[in-house]
Amino acid sequence: MASNRFGRIFAFSSFGESHGPAIGCLVDGCPARTPLSENDIQPFLDRRRPGRNKYVSPREELDQVKILSGVFDGLTTGHPILLLIENQDQRPEDYAKLQDVFRPGHADATYQAKYGIRDHRGGGRSSARETASRVAAGAVARKMLGSFPATRGIKVMAGLVRLGSVAAEKAVWDLPAINSNPFFCPDPTAIQAMQAEMEQRMRQGDSVGGEVEIRAFGVPPGFGEPVYDRLDARIGAACLGLNAVKGVEIGDGFAASHGVGGRDHNDQMRTPPSGILSEAYQSNHAGGILGGISTGQEIVVRCAIKPTPTIACPQKTVDRDWREVELAASGRHDPAVCIRAVPVLEAMLWLILADFFLLKRAGGRPE
Amino acid sequence: MASNRFGRIFAFSSFGESHGPAIGCLVDGCPARTPLSENDIQPFLDRRRPGRNKYVSPREELDQVKILSGVFDGLTTGHPILLLIENQDQRPEDYAKLQDVFRPGHADATYQAKYGIRDHRGGGRSSARETASRVAAGAVARKMLGSFPATRGIKVMAGLVRLGSVAAEKAVWDLPAINSNPFFCPDPTAIQAMQAEMEQRMRQGDSVGGEVEIRAFGVPPGFGEPVYDRLDARIGAACLGLNAVKGVEIGDGFAASHGVGGRDHNDQMRTPPSGILSEAYQSNHAGGILGGISTGQEIVVRCAIKPTPTIACPQKTVDRDWREVELAASGRHDPAVCIRAVPVLEAMLWLILADFFLLKRAGGRPE
Amino acid sequence: MASNRFGRIFAFSSFGESHGPAIGCLVDGCPARTPLSENDIQPFLDRRRPGRNKYVSPREELDQVKILSGVFDGLTTGHPILLLIENQDQRPEDYAKLQDVFRPGHADATYQAKYGIRDHRGGGRSSARETASRVAAGAVARKMLGSFPATRGIKVMAGLVRLGSVAAEKAVWDLPAINSNPFFCPDPTAIQAMQAEMEQRMRQGDSVGGEVEIRAFGVPPGFGEPVYDRLDARIGAACLGLNAVKGVEIGDGFAASHGVGGRDHNDQMRTPPSGILSEAYQSNHAGGILGGISTGQEIVVRCAIKPTPTIACPQKTVDRDWREVELAASGRHDPAVCIRAVPVLEAMLWLILADFFLLKRAGGRPE
Amino acid sequence: MASNRFGRIFAFSSFGESHGPAIGCLVDGCPARTPLSENDIQPFLDRRRPGRNKYVSPREELDQVKILSGVFDGLTTGHPILLLIENQDQRPEDYAKLQDVFRPGHADATYQAKYGIRDHRGGGRSSARETASRVAAGAVARKMLGSFPATRGIKVMAGLVRLGSVAAEKAVWDLPAINSNPFFCPDPTAIQAMQAEMEQRMRQGDSVGGEVEIRAFGVPPGFGEPVYDRLDARIGAACLGLNAVKGVEIGDGFAASHGVGGRDHNDQMRTPPSGILSEAYQSNHAGGILGGISTGQEIVVRCAIKPTPTIACPQKTVDRDWREVELAASGRHDPAVCIRAVPVLEAMLWLILADFFLLKRAGGRPE
Repeated sequence: MASNRFGRIFAFSSFGESHGPAIGCLVDGCPARTPLSENDIQPFLDRRRPGRNKYVSPREELDQVKILSGVFDGLTTGHPILLLIENQDQRPEDYAKLQDVFRPGHADATYQAKYGIRDHRGGGRSSARETASRVAAGAVARKMLGSFPATRGIKVMAGLVRLGSVAAEKAVWDLPAINSNPFFCPDPTAIQAMQAEMEQRMRQGDSVGGEVEIRAFGVPPGFGEPVYDRLDARIGAACLGLNAVKGVEIGDGFAASHGVGGRDHNDQMRTPPSGILSEAYQSNHAGGILGGISTGQEIVVRCAIKPTPTIACPQKTVDRDWREVELAASGRHDPAVCIRAVPVLEAMLWLILADFFLLKRAGGRPE
Repeated sequence: MASNRFGRIFAFSSFGESHGPAIGCLVDGCPARTPLSENDIQPFLDRRRPGRNKYVSPREELDQVKILSGVFDGLTTGHPILLLIENQDQRPEDYAKLQDVFRPGHADATYQAKYGIRDHRGGGRSSARETASRVAAGAVARKMLGSFPATRGIKVMAGLVRLGSVAAEKAVWDLPAINSNPFFCPDPTAIQAMQAEMEQRMRQGDSVGGEVEIRAFGVPPGFGEPVYDRLDARIGAACLGLNAVKGVEIGDGFAASHGVGGRDHNDQMRTPPSGILSEAYQSNHAGGILGGISTGQEIVVRCAIKPTPTIACPQKTVDRDWREVELAASGRHDPAVCIRAVPVLEAMLWLILADFFLLKRAGGRPE
Repeated sequence: MASNRFGRIFAFSSFGESHGPAIGCLVDGCPARTPLSENDIQPFLDRRRPGRNKYVSPREELDQVKILSGVFDGLTTGHPILLLIENQDQRPEDYAKLQDVFRPGHADATYQAKYGIRDHRGGGRSSARETASRVAAGAVARKMLGSFPATRGIKVMAGLVRLGSVAAEKAVWDLPAINSNPFFCPDPTAIQAMQAEMEQRMRQGDSVGGEVEIRAFGVPPGFGEPVYDRLDARIGAACLGLNAVKGVEIGDGFAASHGVGGRDHNDQMRTPPSGILSEAYQSNHAGGILGGISTGQEIVVRCAIKPTPTIACPQKTVDRDWREVELAASGRHDPAVCIRAVPVLEAMLWLILADFFLLKRAGGRPE
Repeated sequence: MASNRFGRIFAFSSFGESHGPAIGCLVDGCPARTPLSENDIQPFLDRRRPGRNKYVSPREELDQVKILSGVFDGLTTGHPILLLIENQDQRPEDYAKLQDVFRPGHADATYQAKYGIRDHRGGGRSSARETASRVAAGAVARKMLGSFPATRGIKVMAGLVRLGSVAAEKAVWDLPAINSNPFFCPDPTAIQAMQAEMEQRMRQGDSVGGEVEIRAFGVPPGFGEPVYDRLDARIGAACLGLNAVKGVEIGDGFAASHGVGGRDHNDQMRTPPSGILSEAYQSNHAGGILGGISTGQEIVVRCAIKPTPTIACPQKTVDRDWREVELAASGRHDPAVCIRAVPVLEAMLWLILADFFLLKRAGGRPE
């Protein structure tokens, strides 16, 4: 109920189903006089959209965004910004046979249990298509942060650091390089192995999971609200609020619980050469967040993403009347949803930073 | 800003500092006519309180809770419930030398950066002492859920499944057994190794991290709100909203991203013998949540907790004027905060389930 | 910031400007399986739309609503419902001369002061056109309440009970009668005098205010949340959240403060013939609300609406550079905005009741 | 459910019953480094407390406030501030005979209908005693606004401008003068008539209503959020969220609907001598708010307050079993609650301004 909203001050609500007439979102709380046009948003949608290469869903969606409100003469007005993306390549008929079947690993059965009704066409509201709205909203957040001096220097980058058994071990955080390969992988030396992994899975009619790392550079200290609405808590909610994410870690994450002592895990401090907090830390095991608040260092987040549940090889399942059926996907889908999760998770971090920036301004003292 | 609140319908806000006069919380939204007295809350505080054994902080706090409002004749009235815990063993003078020093691995420097002021006595608001409020609120949530037929059968248990290099591999989810050892460990065969691990760390003046697993049994299907306020998203926020937690995973978690295919990861389905959704799944890789909504199966969550940052061996750090100082803790602290995190994480899950239960009732249709 | 939202569980957010491409709203929290189509919404928009008769704005807007999401096979799915109304009769050029001028009695100068930018075309976001979104959302609320047994009997009606100096003294709360006159006046004997009043004002190039009364019949007891989110508090916010409303009263309202004693103002009680609370009251001075909670009696609200600020006769004002200018409206406007406020206020009450109904279900005990 | 909270960024939640151990509130979102001690709050509680003179309730409550958290070394820390007021003069036994009786004009029957339980002792949570929490929170809001340059000049004053048939017609907004008479009346020439009115009512065992006017001076332009969370909407909710308030109006209020034309009601504009928006208006019929946003002029609000429902002369009512009983109050009560509403309404306006100030800072551009 009333839960389709993310953020407190800079907030967005999304709407729309995979095979309905349109999807989109309403961005509320963007400060007035932020320069904004469709051109600021479209490139990010283009990165996420299906059909981009052979490793992602072949659904042909242009994902053209239209701004229906809240912008006047190229500037935001302080009022709600409605972003609309009309669905193009709807083929609801492809899904007729799925009307009463619960796809394993999907939300079909839980939506049916919760609501007593569901739009079965491509997963309806639970489709990954919903994430286009997040990417669009994230582009607005990014533009807004870029328009204030205090946050102009923030850069957020995400990349695929693992695809199944292939780990990217020499990540270089350079956006053009990340964008130049089909996996959004920050490690050029891992691409070939990733291709091999993908092709093998696709041949087997199977799918594969992976890990996405998100890094935010240049975030000023003081973002995040203790005790419950911490920066890391909000990041955790954002990541686990995305289809197929099964885990999230900050900084050293799970490794911090596997035997290292406080002596080695603590980020010890020294006099910072230029008197800036971020330079006072001798290491960054914490991932840029202490006590729920940014330290000014690089923010480091990793998400575990499960293999796409839709697969071509046959699976056992049931229909609404609990009859057993066998299901083998023929529709259009991503063999590894973790790839297209990259721009989405990047967008979510922009959105979180935008909101915490405004919250910080609300309560801060003049310098 | 206005962030010290958790939950939407069944919500609580906490207050208080480690060495101030009192801590506590305000529970708002508990349905009327829930039987409630201090006796329903105290046992949970007793589990969490310091001084219980040699592996936790020696601070002597009785953590006696008083209900100041919202209960009449042994029943809740539907109005706010104020729970107050007076601090007993305050020794603010112990912290005088920390007044201007930033303890590594703590929130000292980030709080100072954010607020320009901080209560340095025992960490003030950032102290783990705040978690007593969560435990108290969680006990109210548990009692409320126990008073409705639909949720009477829910059981939540947490346990320490790893302490440093020692993993609990044969967990048995039995509350008396978990409570009977100093680590809240569900695997009796691991206790001895955990003791050895702890004693070694304490001898070294070091600390250690660990993993807590939380399980919820008997949660009906349909808890959780898509798309942003999912059950797993809220769990993620709750876990990462706790001091020292650096990672969280649901079900198979990170393992789901390490090479398994959808074929093996998906929980395939079959005709459920008694027509209940939870029995239709042939496995539970998902950890009881699909599409953000409970399936009715066991909910499985794991948290990574870093080693306690406060340690006896000397560390390099700085003071407010960026002067380098060396710091070796002499105060009272937990050598492994992951132990006392167990009852806290258990409480957080009760709180989440209470809130989603009420949200589900709001929007559900009569059967 | 992030304020364009009304309601907690059954909530809606609106967007759009008077002369942008579209307006609309996102309804979040409507329980699944509510029967809903455009036909359930359109008649309410038709009542509110301009151009209906000579006493309202001649702007020609069909106000055709489209449902873009959240409905499947004629039923709501529990997911967000996006309602879109494309603007037809935009004539932004009519407003060119107003670009830099602050219209007296309007939000022009305050929006400029707050945002440093404003969409001047027809008032942009501050236009009464925004209220079409409220009417559309209200129709969804009404449909939802009509689909639950406990609220099926609720009826909400609003009517114009005063137009300038003409008071409707013999109101009859009958919807067809109210709809059959151009003023939505519930007193047929007042219509002629209202026509005379209107024609005189229009001849003078002036405008006039009035009072709208809203009545809700059949609201069960127990709607409203003490202490801050009372039924009357939320009604107050909804009414004063509407353009041009300058006062609101519940039940006897201001008359209760003018000398009557508690002896005469209190609604004394008696044994209710059929054991229902609403029948226990011997009178209804309270207007159906005590302690912020519905009594089950008729809910009675009255709003004071100021004269339309846009008038044909010349007024003194200033432009953005504080230069004095004289302004005489030539655009399309309502000579008495209070008339078209009637369906809007009716909608707001439906929305409030929908939200409190769901909140009540969340926290109530099974009977 | 979860509704005992007021505000978004600067927010407070209250708790406590009239004859429980304590009442109080939790203030969340107060910016760090606001100077604050009990001495900043106590004078406001002293103004509101009972027993002050013969025209208010004789209950003897010192209303001593204690700050339990969120303040360190005389400054707020940015963390929640818990304000506690222990109840002294509890006489729950006085209320034994009211255990099962619904007092006319009170919330007894609606609370019983909603919750199935109520704390009958002095009205429990619905008692006017709850308003002490608002006054305490309001004092914190006032202190916070006084500590920022932009809001240092704000002054809020409330006064009783009508007591039954006696209207204060020559109000002078001078706080010492208002505080120096037992009615908080801003018109010294009306005091004597008010005394006569009160004494007559008290002799008759009756009560009387009145009107409170609230004025805020020096509020900068730009406070308030369109469209639903307007300054006037929030004021409306605050006023109608107070016991016994039955109406609220802004500026000319209901008079604006009684025949005046836009020509005379609009506040026409001129070149402001010192280039400040508030000086550009030639009049203030709007009451300092246009489009939901402050103009910088004086904010003018009036509330209608009903006669105290508790009266000495006998009234007909029923008990929980619907048996008819006659009730004549013997307990301690205020013959005219409108008097003690004055400091409470003043506090509510401070709270609203504090919240909108922080919201404005969040979204504003650097000058």
